[in-house]
Amino acid sequence: MGGDHGPSVIAPAALGYLERDPDVELVLVGQEDAVRAHLPSGSLPSRLRLRNATQEVAMDELPSKALRNKKDSSMRVAIDLVKEGVADACVSAGNTGALMATARFVLKTLPHIDRPAIITALPSIAGRTWVLDLGANVDCTAEHLFQFAVMGAELVAAVDAVAAPRVGLLNIGQEEIKGNDQVKRAHELLARSAINYVGYAEGDDIYLGNLDVIVTDGFVGNVALKSSEGVAKMIRHHMKAEFTRSLLTRLAGLAALPVLRALSRRIDPRRYNGASLVGLRGIVVKSHGGADALAFRNAIGIAKKEVHEDVPNRIAQRVEQLLGAVEVPA
Amino acid sequence: MGGDHGPSVIAPAALGYLERDPDVELVLVGQEDAVRAHLPSGSLPSRLRLRNATQEVAMDELPSKALRNKKDSSMRVAIDLVKEGVADACVSAGNTGALMATARFVLKTLPHIDRPAIITALPSIAGRTWVLDLGANVDCTAEHLFQFAVMGAELVAAVDAVAAPRVGLLNIGQEEIKGNDQVKRAHELLARSAINYVGYAEGDDIYLGNLDVIVTDGFVGNVALKSSEGVAKMIRHHMKAEFTRSLLTRLAGLAALPVLRALSRRIDPRRYNGASLVGLRGIVVKSHGGADALAFRNAIGIAKKEVHEDVPNRIAQRVEQLLGAVEVPA
Repeated sequence: MGGDHGPSVIAPAALGYLERDPDVELVLVGQEDAVRAHLPSGSLPSRLRLRNATQEVAMDELPSKALRNKKDSSMRVAIDLVKEGVADACVSAGNTGALMATARFVLKTLPHIDRPAIITALPSIAGRTWVLDLGANVDCTAEHLFQFAVMGAELVAAVDAVAAPRVGLLNIGQEEIKGNDQVKRAHELLARSAINYVGYAEGDDIYLGNLDVIVTDGFVGNVALKSSEGVAKMIRHHMKAEFTRSLLTRLAGLAALPVLRALSRRIDPRRYNGASLVGLRGIVVKSHGGADALAFRNAIGIAKKEVHEDVPNRIAQRVEQLLGAVEVPA
Repeated sequence: MGGDHGPSVIAPAALGYLERDPDVELVLVGQEDAVRAHLPSGSLPSRLRLRNATQEVAMDELPSKALRNKKDSSMRVAIDLVKEGVADACVSAGNTGALMATARFVLKTLPHIDRPAIITALPSIAGRTWVLDLGANVDCTAEHLFQFAVMGAELVAAVDAVAAPRVGLLNIGQEEIKGNDQVKRAHELLARSAINYVGYAEGDDIYLGNLDVIVTDGFVGNVALKSSEGVAKMIRHHMKAEFTRSLLTRLAGLAALPVLRALSRRIDPRRYNGASLVGLRGIVVKSHGGADALAFRNAIGIAKKEVHEDVPNRIAQRVEQLLGAVEVPA
């Protein structure tokens, strides 16, 4: 059982989730003794099962090595359960690269999809914006970016019940030097597709609420995500410093506390925890490694929603529709 | 005279700057009548001169066209003044691509530098972090990234008086799929150089205060910058919404106002306005197009500091030292 905290966070998160959602059954996969130590003694709560797995994938383990050597890791066993149809989805806080490699190997990629991608929702002024890829694919061709757009739009259509999600392609604003070749070509592919493609987006569009899906390669997406986290951390740091400067500012902070809490809830990264691996024949959700129980519960909720909306099948159908008929030049 | 506001912002900014800094003379370059309309009537203030320029480069004009057709634009004339030694630096709020193309054509690139870059400082938890490139170079080789590192480190050494600026190379955190080839090769070049190279950085490191310079290509740098702006805008938006929700929250906002103002000052983007074009034989500072007078004054201050520290010559010497002796494989 992975992540920075293992069963000490995931077991309570699972119990907490089951209390809130009567429609879900959970299987905790991990070293059984270690998992049991974080559960109430006696018989297991209803709708909770354990599945022993003797190995663990380290957070810094090479994906190829994990895939080769860890056939009884909690990650592998959990994904096997999805493959076998015993589970409808896998949620993991483990090593992202290993999770992607294992999911790809066990579940397989959808037809017409070259590479699965990682997508997550981020808070915006108006609601939320989904961004992909977030790090699974460093170098992407125009075709890869186009596939990401198809998958992202369909996931959002399903999960957020948006009929025609507005899709933007991440670029930079300067003319002539605008974009690299892949982005320019992806722009052309998108413009003549059935996707509700709005055009180029810039980094700030992630947060301004005018788009539903923003498409980019995994390097850029990852840096955009991490930079944003950095700004939020810095603002939080300075806010704390300013409000604790003197007795007077502490009193002001006390007066403003309910408002600051409401603000903090709105942009709480834990409420956005859970990134989906899309393009696979099955549902896999990646939780942040450092997630606490609230954050991990959120990731379980995302997996449940994707099961409920039958996301992989919807994506498969949409991909078949938009990519299946495309003539591939020799 | 460029930017979104032209002389209506830049003329007052110049007057305001001169009041605060007795050591600087300014030349306002633009359509003289339009500029005069924003200056006090009668004789000009001391240390302020006007230089007429009949043309303007539009904010969306193609750089190549501006370069070819606008030889009497305020931008071109201002850069010519630097070339002729009449001015020590040029500050412009105009079209970034045209400014870079014109500066490169008129001033020329330093020996051993393939491409100039754009660098700016961003606020961090501990002070500020400089990031380059911010959009001048979309596709970069490892050698380009290395050149950016040399230039960025020397600029920071000069302007922030840091003996050995800590340099990081922007990358993403996942093993095996870590980085693209250019980044991996730049990492090797940096690791065996005389630069104080700390290693890979991630997006949040821009704001965490553990590095002085972060190097990346112009696409990624631009997206990181814009994404960060987006998060800050969203937080400001939600803060305003929360504090104006009811009479009670308005009162809380009033109590917290001095603290919120102090916070806002710390991360005020106007205080960070002014990006430097480095790698040229002269000083050119780009102000944000939408800058107000305070922000534009800040950009003038950056140019003054670079003149004072003789930044282009310092960079040229450092580049000669670190790049001049390098054997270029055939």
